[in-house]
Amino acid sequence: MELWFMGTGAGMPIKERNVTSVALSLQRRRGTFWLFDCGEGTQHRLLHSPLRLSRMEKLFVTHLHGDHVYGIPGLLSSRSSLGGTDPLQVYGPPGLRELIESSLRITGTHLDYPLEIKEIEPGPIVVDGDFTVEAAHLDHRIECFGYRVSERPRGGKLNVELLAELGVPAGPAYGELKKGRDIVLEDGRTIRSVDVLGAPLPGRIVAIMGDTRPTAGAVALARGADLLVHEATFGDDLAGKAELYGHSTSVQAAEIAFAAGVERLLLTHFSSRYKTEDLAELEAQARAIFPHTDAAVELVPYTVFGLPR
Amino acid sequence: MELWFMGTGAGMPIKERNVTSVALSLQRRRGTFWLFDCGEGTQHRLLHSPLRLSRMEKLFVTHLHGDHVYGIPGLLSSRSSLGGTDPLQVYGPPGLRELIESSLRITGTHLDYPLEIKEIEPGPIVVDGDFTVEAAHLDHRIECFGYRVSERPRGGKLNVELLAELGVPAGPAYGELKKGRDIVLEDGRTIRSVDVLGAPLPGRIVAIMGDTRPTAGAVALARGADLLVHEATFGDDLAGKAELYGHSTSVQAAEIAFAAGVERLLLTHFSSRYKTEDLAELEAQARAIFPHTDAAVELVPYTVFGLPR
Ligand SMILES: [Zn+2]
Ligand SMILES: [Zn+2]
Repeated sequence: MELWFMGTGAGMPIKERNVTSVALSLQRRRGTFWLFDCGEGTQHRLLHSPLRLSRMEKLFVTHLHGDHVYGIPGLLSSRSSLGGTDPLQVYGPPGLRELIESSLRITGTHLDYPLEIKEIEPGPIVVDGDFTVEAAHLDHRIECFGYRVSERPRGGKLNVELLAELGVPAGPAYGELKKGRDIVLEDGRTIRSVDVLGAPLPGRIVAIMGDTRPTAGAVALARGADLLVHEATFGDDLAGKAELYGHSTSVQAAEIAFAAGVERLLLTHFSSRYKTEDLAELEAQARAIFPHTDAAVELVPYTVFGLPR
Repeated sequence: MELWFMGTGAGMPIKERNVTSVALSLQRRRGTFWLFDCGEGTQHRLLHSPLRLSRMEKLFVTHLHGDHVYGIPGLLSSRSSLGGTDPLQVYGPPGLRELIESSLRITGTHLDYPLEIKEIEPGPIVVDGDFTVEAAHLDHRIECFGYRVSERPRGGKLNVELLAELGVPAGPAYGELKKGRDIVLEDGRTIRSVDVLGAPLPGRIVAIMGDTRPTAGAVALARGADLLVHEATFGDDLAGKAELYGHSTSVQAAEIAFAAGVERLLLTHFSSRYKTEDLAELEAQARAIFPHTDAAVELVPYTVFGLPR
């Protein structure tokens, strides 16, 4: 699991930063990726990443401000042109369906795949064999969601050296042991799963927030996450402006990370007033409160490590 | 007057080419620019040009396919954020108003300037002191317009060296002479405007087509233009595909330029199948018929020279 930021900016693009979008690569787990928000130009940025748009599986929209959604119609269209035929699920607040459907209708855009638009409420919105995704309200000027992606624990690893020593032939026996079942060899020896199977790997948790003032909802959603993505539209000196426009400062983002007890914080959604070199100051402000913080950089991978909790 | 291509691609962006948009800079004439079509990412490309979005005066839309319009909502929004307060006129086929207004409404986007959306019919759509813009139907899969921008002849230049020799003081007298009126100096000498004023400069003509099969409408609209922008979605070998999808080949674009007797042809709207190096072949095919042809390159200026006609 890796996060790739396609855009880390608020409001409008500047030369060095695009508007908001972040991809969660599930390449190893299921050969796909999920996208969170889709500002204009997201599909352009994807071209410069290893992610293939045809393999995009789900889109989660935090809220309907333009800097988070104007890239959706073009992205949906290109996914079709690039050969994507698997269904695509899109989750977000009410209004999302009209936004997408009117754009596609007026432009006569045909998609070669089933598009499933789900206007959501707080609660679990995805539950499958690998993941649960939970949505919760944040505190912005309009309805805005944060998302918590929880991976199910993955089975432990078989100790193949030990199995070879014990003379267990590779094949169906490995599968049984992996499922936790003991086996009896032809010579009558019993091999106990517990002796050859490592501890289950804990499921990883990634929490991705939309635009928000500091809110208890974000803390709850991010509780114990391996990685929290939180907006930091402004530096500490502009707390008044942040409050007025429904945003957070770098310091407030760090306070949320601290309160939620997350492992790592990535800041994003920077005001266009900040040049790249200014972000070091926002980072420093946050690190004073929550040291494991970085200002997210576009188009580099952030691996989500699952740590024992 | 210069053309700047923000995008020269059809359908979807590729790494080296954006979807369609071209700007006509009127910087010297009136300090503004006009935009023709606005695919997704147009505002991003503008950031890499000398054109300032707040100085954008008019947007002409050829048709409502996504690769020509998905950049509109973000562009309109950023023009406001960047301090644009002058009215903006947007021209295009019916449906344009709903496309723009629904996007702005659902995203809660407020513009700090008057937006005038004009759903047009063929004929003159702009007539002002400097320019006339005429629209005509082309032949695409949906309603599609081409635009002809005709500049009014500009006054000739005063011969300031001669005026100095003649002892005419700079000031109001210059203005009179420039308007074609003769003046009488204090010492009684008459200075004739015709003696100190150069010939009027011919108005320049730029014709910008939308997506189209070869059509007589394009020839009429481009008649005698200094510069014709015509799509060449495919090379000559894909004429069948071009016909089917309502597009032109490079050769067909050249035939239109030849028939219209234009000065120069710029090809654009290239299929994503063509890499940059492939465009030399499309260029060569067109040049065999109309030598003064180039495949348009993004983000370089193409000056429109007014030649005596
Ligand atoms: Zn935002
Ligand atoms: Zn097109």
